[in-house]
Amino acid sequence: MTGKQNNVKRTYYFGNQLAEGSRDDVNLLGGKGANLAEMTSIGLPVPPGFTITTTTCAEYYQGGGILPKGLQGSIRLNMNRLEKETGKRFGDDDNPLLVSVRSGAAVSMPGMLDTILNLGLTDRSVTGLARQTDNRRFALDAYRRLINMFGNVVMGVEHEHFEDVFTRIKQQYGVTEDADLNQDGLEKLIAAYKKVYRQQSGEAFPQAPHEQLEKAVEAVFRSWNTPRALTYRKINNIRGHIGTAANIQSMVFGNMGDDSGTGVAFTRDPTSGRNEFYGEFLINAQGEDVVAGIRTPQPVARMKKWRPEIYQQLLKVKHTLETHYKDMQDIEFTIEKSVLYMLQTRTGKRTGAAAVKIAVDMVRENLINQKDALLRVPANDLNQVLLPSFDHKAKRNVLATGLPASPGAASGYPVFTADEAVEQSENGHPVILVRRETSPEDIHGMHVAEAILTSTGGSTSHAAVVARGWGKCCVTGASELIIDSKRKTLTIKDRVITPADIISIDGSNGEIMLGDVPKQPPVFTSEFKTLMAWADKTRKLVIRTNADTPMDAAMALEFGAEGIGLCRTEHMFFGDNRIAAMREMILAETETERRTALKKLLPFQRRDFEGIFSTMRRLPVTIRLLDPPLHEFLPEEEKLQRQLARTMKVSVARIVRRVNQLHEVNPMLGHRGCRLTVTYPEILEMQVTAIVEATINCRRKRINAQPEIMIPLVGLESELSMLREKVEQIISQVKNRKKFTGKLEIPIGTMIEVPRAAITADDIAAHADFFSFGTNDLTQMTLGYSRDDIGSFMPEYLAKNLLEENPFQTMDVAGVGQLVEQAVHRGRSVKRELKCGICGEHGGDPESINFFQSVQLDYISCSPFRVPIARLAAAQAALRNQLELFSR
Amino acid sequence: MTGKQNNVKRTYYFGNQLAEGSRDDVNLLGGKGANLAEMTSIGLPVPPGFTITTTTCAEYYQGGGILPKGLQGSIRLNMNRLEKETGKRFGDDDNPLLVSVRSGAAVSMPGMLDTILNLGLTDRSVTGLARQTDNRRFALDAYRRLINMFGNVVMGVEHEHFEDVFTRIKQQYGVTEDADLNQDGLEKLIAAYKKVYRQQSGEAFPQAPHEQLEKAVEAVFRSWNTPRALTYRKINNIRGHIGTAANIQSMVFGNMGDDSGTGVAFTRDPTSGRNEFYGEFLINAQGEDVVAGIRTPQPVARMKKWRPEIYQQLLKVKHTLETHYKDMQDIEFTIEKSVLYMLQTRTGKRTGAAAVKIAVDMVRENLINQKDALLRVPANDLNQVLLPSFDHKAKRNVLATGLPASPGAASGYPVFTADEAVEQSENGHPVILVRRETSPEDIHGMHVAEAILTSTGGSTSHAAVVARGWGKCCVTGASELIIDSKRKTLTIKDRVITPADIISIDGSNGEIMLGDVPKQPPVFTSEFKTLMAWADKTRKLVIRTNADTPMDAAMALEFGAEGIGLCRTEHMFFGDNRIAAMREMILAETETERRTALKKLLPFQRRDFEGIFSTMRRLPVTIRLLDPPLHEFLPEEEKLQRQLARTMKVSVARIVRRVNQLHEVNPMLGHRGCRLTVTYPEILEMQVTAIVEATINCRRKRINAQPEIMIPLVGLESELSMLREKVEQIISQVKNRKKFTGKLEIPIGTMIEVPRAAITADDIAAHADFFSFGTNDLTQMTLGYSRDDIGSFMPEYLAKNLLEENPFQTMDVAGVGQLVEQAVHRGRSVKRELKCGICGEHGGDPESINFFQSVQLDYISCSPFRVPIARLAAAQAALRNQLELFSR
Repeated sequence: MTGKQNNVKRTYYFGNQLAEGSRDDVNLLGGKGANLAEMTSIGLPVPPGFTITTTTCAEYYQGGGILPKGLQGSIRLNMNRLEKETGKRFGDDDNPLLVSVRSGAAVSMPGMLDTILNLGLTDRSVTGLARQTDNRRFALDAYRRLINMFGNVVMGVEHEHFEDVFTRIKQQYGVTEDADLNQDGLEKLIAAYKKVYRQQSGEAFPQAPHEQLEKAVEAVFRSWNTPRALTYRKINNIRGHIGTAANIQSMVFGNMGDDSGTGVAFTRDPTSGRNEFYGEFLINAQGEDVVAGIRTPQPVARMKKWRPEIYQQLLKVKHTLETHYKDMQDIEFTIEKSVLYMLQTRTGKRTGAAAVKIAVDMVRENLINQKDALLRVPANDLNQVLLPSFDHKAKRNVLATGLPASPGAASGYPVFTADEAVEQSENGHPVILVRRETSPEDIHGMHVAEAILTSTGGSTSHAAVVARGWGKCCVTGASELIIDSKRKTLTIKDRVITPADIISIDGSNGEIMLGDVPKQPPVFTSEFKTLMAWADKTRKLVIRTNADTPMDAAMALEFGAEGIGLCRTEHMFFGDNRIAAMREMILAETETERRTALKKLLPFQRRDFEGIFSTMRRLPVTIRLLDPPLHEFLPEEEKLQRQLARTMKVSVARIVRRVNQLHEVNPMLGHRGCRLTVTYPEILEMQVTAIVEATINCRRKRINAQPEIMIPLVGLESELSMLREKVEQIISQVKNRKKFTGKLEIPIGTMIEVPRAAITADDIAAHADFFSFGTNDLTQMTLGYSRDDIGSFMPEYLAKNLLEENPFQTMDVAGVGQLVEQAVHRGRSVKRELKCGICGEHGGDPESINFFQSVQLDYISCSPFRVPIARLAAAQAALRNQLELFSR
Repeated sequence: MTGKQNNVKRTYYFGNQLAEGSRDDVNLLGGKGANLAEMTSIGLPVPPGFTITTTTCAEYYQGGGILPKGLQGSIRLNMNRLEKETGKRFGDDDNPLLVSVRSGAAVSMPGMLDTILNLGLTDRSVTGLARQTDNRRFALDAYRRLINMFGNVVMGVEHEHFEDVFTRIKQQYGVTEDADLNQDGLEKLIAAYKKVYRQQSGEAFPQAPHEQLEKAVEAVFRSWNTPRALTYRKINNIRGHIGTAANIQSMVFGNMGDDSGTGVAFTRDPTSGRNEFYGEFLINAQGEDVVAGIRTPQPVARMKKWRPEIYQQLLKVKHTLETHYKDMQDIEFTIEKSVLYMLQTRTGKRTGAAAVKIAVDMVRENLINQKDALLRVPANDLNQVLLPSFDHKAKRNVLATGLPASPGAASGYPVFTADEAVEQSENGHPVILVRRETSPEDIHGMHVAEAILTSTGGSTSHAAVVARGWGKCCVTGASELIIDSKRKTLTIKDRVITPADIISIDGSNGEIMLGDVPKQPPVFTSEFKTLMAWADKTRKLVIRTNADTPMDAAMALEFGAEGIGLCRTEHMFFGDNRIAAMREMILAETETERRTALKKLLPFQRRDFEGIFSTMRRLPVTIRLLDPPLHEFLPEEEKLQRQLARTMKVSVARIVRRVNQLHEVNPMLGHRGCRLTVTYPEILEMQVTAIVEATINCRRKRINAQPEIMIPLVGLESELSMLREKVEQIISQVKNRKKFTGKLEIPIGTMIEVPRAAITADDIAAHADFFSFGTNDLTQMTLGYSRDDIGSFMPEYLAKNLLEENPFQTMDVAGVGQLVEQAVHRGRSVKRELKCGICGEHGGDPESINFFQSVQLDYISCSPFRVPIARLAAAQAALRNQLELFSR
C-alpha cells in the first residue's frame, strides 16, 4: 500500500496489530522481517516498523549500486506512518523517533551486517531524547554509540580510531570503565568522535536523519555481497537467494533504568526438550550487552521475582507463539520501563534429545501430528541420543582439531600400538589408540580402545570405517599431531603428551582435548522409543545392519535391525588362531597345502556363523564371501615378517617372496573379491561349506537360520554365473553329506560395486537373487577416487565448491546415483522380484537414504549404531517421496 | 535325394561332376565336405564320395550316443551309388571299393580325429586289392595300416601295442625299415596285429566292411566331444557349432608306384604373395607321408620335369579355383597312376605382406573389387609389413616365452639398467633392456634399447605401453626370468646369460631366444601404398596419432597420421634439465617457490611445442595437460634420493618427507589429472602459457599451428567449467602480452576417462569443445582392474573364458563401450557439433576401431606405428557398418 511505486511494492509495514507481510514471506522479507510481521498480526507487542524487501536489494545491485528510484518516497511514507503510530517525530528536538536498521536474509548468515541502533539521533534530537527520557547521560551515550556504529559499519571507519579517542578521554577523566564517564566527558567524546568521523570518512556525520536512514539501508544492501558473505554462501552452498531485506523498526530501550531490561529465551529447554521456559535476561541493558558477555545474565525464571506480571506476560507469549508456530521458538525481547516488547522470534535450535522430546510432546499436546514429528527431527541428530557426549558446560582445553570421523565422546591414556592398547586395557586403564593410520593388523587394539585418533586419513579411512561400524569415537586426519611411537610421545604444537596424560576426543567435531572432560551417557527415553515406533510404522525400507560378530548383531537387534545386510567374513580371520591358518593358506604353494590350511579355518567359520545365526534367529543374514586382497593378511613390516617366519617355521625369504608377489600397485583395483574365488575356488568351497553346515546345525536346533550368500566385486555376468553354479553345487553336496532333507533355499546374490556391473545389471540379474549395492567401492570407481588418498585434494574440492559433499559420506546422486538407479531398473526389467539393497557407508546417511527410497530399494544396511538414524531417515524419506508424488 | 529319411536329409553325395552340396553349406557339411562338393560341381577331378551332415552328429549326441535310425540306410544307398560310379564293390574279393573317412567341422579344429584310410579291406577283399593292383605287397601293407589305424582311433588301442609287434617281426626278418619287410613278414604282421586288436579291444577286427564304416563314422562323431576338442573350442571361443561332418570318399593311392604321388600347394606364394604356384610333392607316397616328414618333398615346380602334363593340369586347376573362389587356395592332391585327383581346397593362410599383395593383385586381375581387397587383409597383419620380423626359415633356440607386448624382432646384448643401456648403445652395441618392470625413470634406457624385456607386468604395463608407442619390440611378464641386476645375469631354467651373450626377442609371439636370429626388414611395397590409398578413400574416421616429440610426430606423418590426438606433456619433463626443475617444483613448499621452478620449465615446454607444431604444420595437435601423480617424478630408491638431495642442495629428510607425503595407496585413483591443476593452478598456467606462446611464435613464422588443449581426468562438470575459465583467461592474457591481434581460437576439451564423466556427459559437454575418450583409464575404472595388477588373475580369466579378450587390448563393448556410446550420445544431445575421438590403446586395435566407427566417433588416435593399421581397420569398419545398415 504505502510502498507501491512503479507497480513494485518495496516496503511492508507492521504495527498496530496489522502487518502487510506474514511468515509466508520469508523469501521476500527475510526471516526476521517475516516473523516481525507475523508476531504483529497475532497481537504480540512488537515495536512498529517496516521491512524493505530482498528484491529491492536485488534492484540495488542491478542498478549498479544505486537505491532504486521511488524507494526514498516509500521510506518516507512508512516513516510518516511510524511517526503517527508512535506519536514521535524522526529527528525531533522534543520527542524524537529513533529507529534501528537490521539486515535479515531468508537464511541466517553470519558475516553480514547485523544492526545499527539509534538512527535519528543528531545534535538537535539528542537534546530531545534527553528531555523525553529525562536522562541526558543516556541520550548522550546513545548518540556516541550511533556515531561509532554508523561510522564503522556505514562509512567503514576502523573501530580502533574511535577506541583510541575513547581511551584518551577516559584517561583525561581518570576513569577506566565506559559507564563511569560522566556527561561532560560524553560530550567531549561526541565531539571527538565526530572529528574522527570526518577525518576518516572525508565528510561530516550526517545531521539529517533521513540521510542517516538511507545510508544505513544502503549499507545493509552492500553487506550482502561483501567477500566474507559471498564466501560464506559459497561454502555453505546457499543458492537461489537474491538479496537481503532491511528492517526499520522503532527503538525500544532496555537500558532506561532498573525497570528496563532485555533477554533471549527458548520456549522449551533446547538441551533436554523439557517444556520449560528457558533463557536469560539482563536488567538495565540492551540486547548487545547480553551478547557482549560483560555482565552475567540471570536465568529467565528469576524474572518471576523481579517483575512477576512481565513474567506472566512472557509465558503467555510463549504459549501464543507455540500454538501459532507449532514449534519451539527462540525469542528476543526488551522491557522498556516495565513494558514488554518482542524483537524477534524464530524456530529454535536444539539438541538431538530435545528434538525428539519436543516432537513427541507436541504430538501429545495436539500441536502437530505424527508425520510432522517424524519430519521435524534431523535424523543425524539422533547420534547425540545414541552415543555418549561431553557435558555441554564442561571446560574444553582444545589442543588440536581433526576430522570428526565417528561421533561419540571418550577419554583415555594415549597408546601407540595395538598390543599396548590391549595390555593397558587389560590392566584396567582406558586408552585411546593413537596411530598415523590404522590397518587391519591393528584391529585388536582398536577394539579395546575407548577411541581412535589418527594423524592422517580422511573420514572414510580404515580407522573411520571400522570405528563407525562399532559406534566407537574416532578422530582422523589430525595433521598437527606428531606421533613418536618409539618414544611414546604425542606432540601437538610444542606440547608433549606422554602415556601418563589423559586426553579426550570429541568424535562429533574432531576436537582433541587435554584432560578427562566430563561426559553424559546416552539415555533412551520413552519419547525416543515412541518416535522410533512411529518411524517403523511409516517407513517402507527394511533396515538391516552390517555386523560381523554375534556381539555386533545383538547390539544391532537392540537398535532395531531387521537382519544383517553385510556380514564380512574377513574380519573373522584376524583372531589369534585364525590368522595363523589364514597365513598358512596364503603362503601355500600348492592347492593341497591351501586346502589343508582351509580345513583348519572351516570350524572357526562355522562356529562364527552359528553364533550369528543363533543371535539373528529367523532374520536374514547376508554373508559376503572373502573380499580383501590376500596381502592384507600378511605383515608388511620386516620385524613382523621375521616373527611370522619363526612362528610358521618357514624361511623369511619365502614370506618376503610371497609378500612381494602379492604386492599391488593399486590394491583397490586388484586381485580381490570374487577374483580371489575364481583363482582359488577352494576358498569359496570352504566358506560355503561353513555357511551350509552352520545353517543345518542351527536348523536342527530349531533355529531357523536364514543365510544369504553374497559374491563381491562382480563385474562380469560370466563370473557370477560360474560362481553361482559352484555355490549351488557345494550347497547340495553338504546337504547330502549331512543327510539334511529339509528345505534349504539359500538366496545367492551379488554386490553391485564395479561400474560395469551396474551398466550390465540386466545380464547379471539373470544369475542373482538379490543385488546389494556396495556404494563405497562404486563411488571409488565411478569417480576415480581412492578413499585412502582423497586427503590431498578433497578438502580443496569442498572448499572451492567443486563438490557439494564428500561423496563417500553422502551419495553422489548425479553420478553414482544414476548408476544405482539404472542398475535397479535394468535388474528388475529382467527379474521383477529382484531384491535390491545397499550395504555401503551411505546406508547410514539420511540424505542418501532419501535417494535410496526414491529409487525404491527394498532394504538398506548400516552399522549397528546408525540403525535408529536409518529407521527415522527411512520414515522421512517415505513421507517426502509421498509428498513428491502428490505434488507431481 | 538318396539320404532322405524321416524327412531329414543326412547325406550329401558328390561325384560325376554333380554334388548335392556346395561351398555355401559349410555349417551343414563342414569346410572339407562343402569344398569337395564345390570342386566336384566345377568339374575338378575329385574322387567321388558323400558327406554325413553336422546335424547328424548333433542327433547322435541327442540320442545318447547312438547313430540315428535311418542313417545306416542312407549310408548304404550312397555306397551303392559310389559302387556304381567307380565300378568297384565294397568288400569285394575281386575289385574292392576302398574308402576313407574324414571328419570335417565348419571350423578347423586340431585335436579332433582326422582320417581313417583304406576302409573296406578285409581278409577277403585284401586279395581282391592285390589282384586289382597287381601288387600283393601294396595290398597287405594297406591292410596292416587299416588294422593299426582302425584299432587305434576307433577302438582306442594304444599305438605302442602295434609298434611293439612290428618291431619284433622286423627283428625276426632282420630289417630295420618298415618298407623293407617282405610279403611274408607282412602276412605275419597282419596276423599279429589282429591278435593285438582282439586282446586289447575284446573283439575281433570286423570283417564286415559296413561294420567298419559305421564304426568309423561313430568314431568321427565321438571325436567332436573329446576333452581335448572341448577345451580347444572353449579356449578359442568357438561357439554355436553343433557337431562335425563325416566325409566318406573313395580311396585314391599316391603310393602305387613311380607314376603316383601326392602333394600340397598354395595357388600363390603365401609368404610374398607372388602369383606363383607354390608347394611340394612326393613321388610314390600318400598324403600322410608328406606330413610325417620322413622323406623330403620336392618343390612343386619340379613336377614340370617329372610329369609336365600333370603340372599343366594342376596349373589349370589353380586357375579354375582362383577364378571360382576369388582367393588364394591351399590344396591337397594325389596322383594315382598318372591321374590327378583333388582331395581338398580351402582359403590359404598367408603373411601380412602376402595378404596385401594378393588383395591388390586380384583387384588388378579383376577377380575382386577394392572393397573386397580392403576387407580381405586382416589389419593387424600389417604389423608384419611395418616392423622387422625374424626370417621364417631361421632356427630358433627358444629359452622362454613371455607376453607379446609390442611386435617386432630384435637382438642385442642384455643390459640391466637404463644407464647401462645408454652407455653400451653409445659404444655402438645393440642392447636389450632387461628389467623386472620399467618405470618412467627408465625412459632414456628404453629409448636407446633395441627391445625391452621384463619379467613381470602384462601387455599393458608401463614397458608395453611405452614400447608400443615407439613401435619398439617388447616382451613382458616372462616370469621364468630370474634377473640379478647386481651381478648382471639373467637366468632362465638354469641357463645363465651374461652381458656377453646375444639374445633375440620376438615381440609377436613373446619368444626369448639365444643368439642373433636373422631378421627381415620391413618393405613398403607399391601394393601396400595402393591398399592404403584405397583405405583412405573409404574410411570415415580421421586417424590421428599419440606423439610427444617432433620425431614421433614426423614418423606418424609418414605413416599417414592426420593430426596428433594425444600429446602427453609429462614425458617432456623427463629430460635432464627438465627433471631437475620439475623436482624443484614438486619439492616447493610455497606457491612462490613453485612458480620459480615452473618459470624454468616454461621455455622447455614452449620449445617442445614449437617443435611439434612445426612438424605438424596446419594439422591439429591435442595437448593434454599434466596427468600423472607428482610422485612419479621423484625417485623411490634411497640411493637416488640421496643423490637428488645433493644435486638439489636440500636435506635428504625433506625429499623423504615429500615422497612419503605424496605416497598413495592407489595412485591410479589419486591426486592426478585435473585434480593436480585444481590444487596447483600455477602448473596449468605455465603449460597453457607455453602452448599459447609457442602457437603465436609459430604463427608469426607462418606456421599455422593448431593446438587443442585437453584437460585430463575430469569427473565433475564443475572441474571442467572452472579450469576452462582459467585456460581462457590465460589465453587472452598471453595474447595481450604478446600483442597478437590475429585470430586464435584454441579448442578446449576434456578426456572422458572417469566413468562419472561418461555418465554425466551432457553436463560436461556444455564446457567442452571436444571429448577424447581415454579408454585405458575408463577400462580400469569401469571394470575395476588395475592395469598393473591384472597379471595375477587375467590369464585365468581368459583361460576360463570369463573374459573373451583382454579388455585393455580390445574394447569391452558390452561394458566400457556402453559408456562410450552413452557419452557420445549425451554429449551430442546438448552440442550437436561436439567432436568425439579416442586416444587410448584401443585406438590401434581393429576390432575396437570397428566399434568406434559404429558409435560414430570423429577420430581415433593411436601410436605412430599403428597408424596404417588404424587406417585400414577404419576403412573396414566403414564398409562393415555400411553393410550392417543395408542389412537392417
